[in-house]
Amino acid sequence: MEFLNKTISAIQPLDADAMRRTEQRIHSLTMPDWALGTLCDLAVRLSGMAGTVPPPVARRAIVVMAGDHGVVEEGVSPYSQKVTQQMVANMAAGGAGVNVLGRLNGAKVLLADFGMAERDEELVRQGKLIDCNVGKGTANFAKTHAMTREAAAQSIENGIRLAHDLADETDVFATGEMGIGNTTPATAIVAAMTGQAPDALTGPGAGLARDAVAKKARLIGDALARHRPDANDPLDVLAKVGGFEIGGIAGLVLGAASRRRPVLVDGFISTAGAMLACGLCPEAKSYAVLSHASAEPGHALMCEWLGLRPLLSLGMRLGEGTGAALAMNLLEAACRILTEMATFDSAGVESKTA
Amino acid sequence: MEFLNKTISAIQPLDADAMRRTEQRIHSLTMPDWALGTLCDLAVRLSGMAGTVPPPVARRAIVVMAGDHGVVEEGVSPYSQKVTQQMVANMAAGGAGVNVLGRLNGAKVLLADFGMAERDEELVRQGKLIDCNVGKGTANFAKTHAMTREAAAQSIENGIRLAHDLADETDVFATGEMGIGNTTPATAIVAAMTGQAPDALTGPGAGLARDAVAKKARLIGDALARHRPDANDPLDVLAKVGGFEIGGIAGLVLGAASRRRPVLVDGFISTAGAMLACGLCPEAKSYAVLSHASAEPGHALMCEWLGLRPLLSLGMRLGEGTGAALAMNLLEAACRILTEMATFDSAGVESKTA
Repeated sequence: MEFLNKTISAIQPLDADAMRRTEQRIHSLTMPDWALGTLCDLAVRLSGMAGTVPPPVARRAIVVMAGDHGVVEEGVSPYSQKVTQQMVANMAAGGAGVNVLGRLNGAKVLLADFGMAERDEELVRQGKLIDCNVGKGTANFAKTHAMTREAAAQSIENGIRLAHDLADETDVFATGEMGIGNTTPATAIVAAMTGQAPDALTGPGAGLARDAVAKKARLIGDALARHRPDANDPLDVLAKVGGFEIGGIAGLVLGAASRRRPVLVDGFISTAGAMLACGLCPEAKSYAVLSHASAEPGHALMCEWLGLRPLLSLGMRLGEGTGAALAMNLLEAACRILTEMATFDSAGVESKTA
Repeated sequence: MEFLNKTISAIQPLDADAMRRTEQRIHSLTMPDWALGTLCDLAVRLSGMAGTVPPPVARRAIVVMAGDHGVVEEGVSPYSQKVTQQMVANMAAGGAGVNVLGRLNGAKVLLADFGMAERDEELVRQGKLIDCNVGKGTANFAKTHAMTREAAAQSIENGIRLAHDLADETDVFATGEMGIGNTTPATAIVAAMTGQAPDALTGPGAGLARDAVAKKARLIGDALARHRPDANDPLDVLAKVGGFEIGGIAGLVLGAASRRRPVLVDGFISTAGAMLACGLCPEAKSYAVLSHASAEPGHALMCEWLGLRPLLSLGMRLGEGTGAALAMNLLEAACRILTEMATFDSAGVESKTA
């Protein structure tokens, strides 16, 4: 808890001077003022985060955090829990969606075990799976708390530590996750943090049938009624209905923010982690960039709660970090505009006459 | 007109077999079914266009078509007409937004003069500006028809010819444009083709003040009332209220479609060109991909009329081809999923149990 508190107090507001200089630069570029819209806004935010103009974006890391969920025994996923480990192996071999899109946009994919039920120790020995494990899967939150408060703090602190370990070689962080069943804790988190009923927030996740979605929503509602997580205490929410990898995501967001690095938040599960981080430290929001609007119904409310607008909206619901990997291209675009575009002066183009 | 008609009759429906094979491939990939949403849809469409799985997307060309507009003498742009030529020079030197974003996403930027009032002949001699000129700027359509019907057909045929000239070395086309004042003809085209009043469709373009926007809308409304373009005759619309580069865009769309190449349509002006193309040949729609939702108010109605949803929505209103350049990354992503992602079988991942 000391490390967590220290990190929170290290998170600083954006650099107003760097933002102002970026705005001035944009006004001078050969286009109608602010005509690249969101890319201009993004360039300003990125400068404010880094405190430099142009902000660095060359070294990109997507951190895929894996964890298992006791609640899968309630039938909340159409996939077997074994698939968490199988997909981590697929990612280690470079064959998953996040690998494909990460390669496309020049981002490294790093894998970290925050709470897998089973893992291939060989991957850990080879350095392909970073050991941040807090437990072998959470407890079934339909019956009991998902984890202790201590484990919740530990998962966040492990995420912070990971961000620190990577920060010297990383300009842009992105969150990703793999954990069969993890839309259930993510939905419970958004319901707990916003006070909204789970019915309208619960979706098919990895492809649940309609009647099973209704059962999943009831399960979440019942668990929230029984455990009564405190919306003003994100650690309490994480402990009662969360997941180890979701704690890891919250930690990565806080760690990145404390090191003035942007953190691209992937989809539904990652945004639940970002909500916990911003609940613990509202200033962390300044460093979070929502990469895409998830097809999962609860995501719109998450974005609203955070006060952030996702960059992309492509009906994606894969997770892993795939949306963040795609959005890397927009971050690079925002930065390149600042460095590569000619100014009215340099190109001899007349600016507005009226 | 013969060449135009021949091109129209050469445009074939998408290849259903290639699309079905792509769908099957996507079902086998290690993700919940269709979990990459729009990227999956796009992969299917691209396969249907090319008739091959995977579809080729490596060689990309953004064709920036330039033209001037007599209607600028009515004060419809805050920029001087000279800026068309100045910006073409900026593009030839690699300093404009479209160059920056084209470089980022591996797309060549090609410049073509379809109707510039003045141009630097040196650029033509150096091969940096392709000569497709139909006239030295259109006539002021507030007073008379913008061009003759013959010139309208010529601008489209020049665009088709350009597509043919480039097709052997181009997998993906994108449209772009440069022409001071060209949101005015584009707005007139969408109003003429849809029958909607210009008031709600007219926007600030490159940054017109609010009262000037109202004047621009009135000017368009008056011209439509006087010239009465026939919505069922796109050549009539182009001749009466269009622009040479907008005809070129329509031609490029038709030419690309006739060669089974996808054509990424940029923003407001490009979509006006795509409307003319699809008015002439509805099947051309199958080959058009709308890259982004323009900030210009009339664009939403254009997308609705075409029945196509833009990939990106980033508040952009620069034109040039910048939105198409950004969207190139999504086309490549769609294609790479097909070629690089592991299947459930190859990766030893269990598929759905329920």
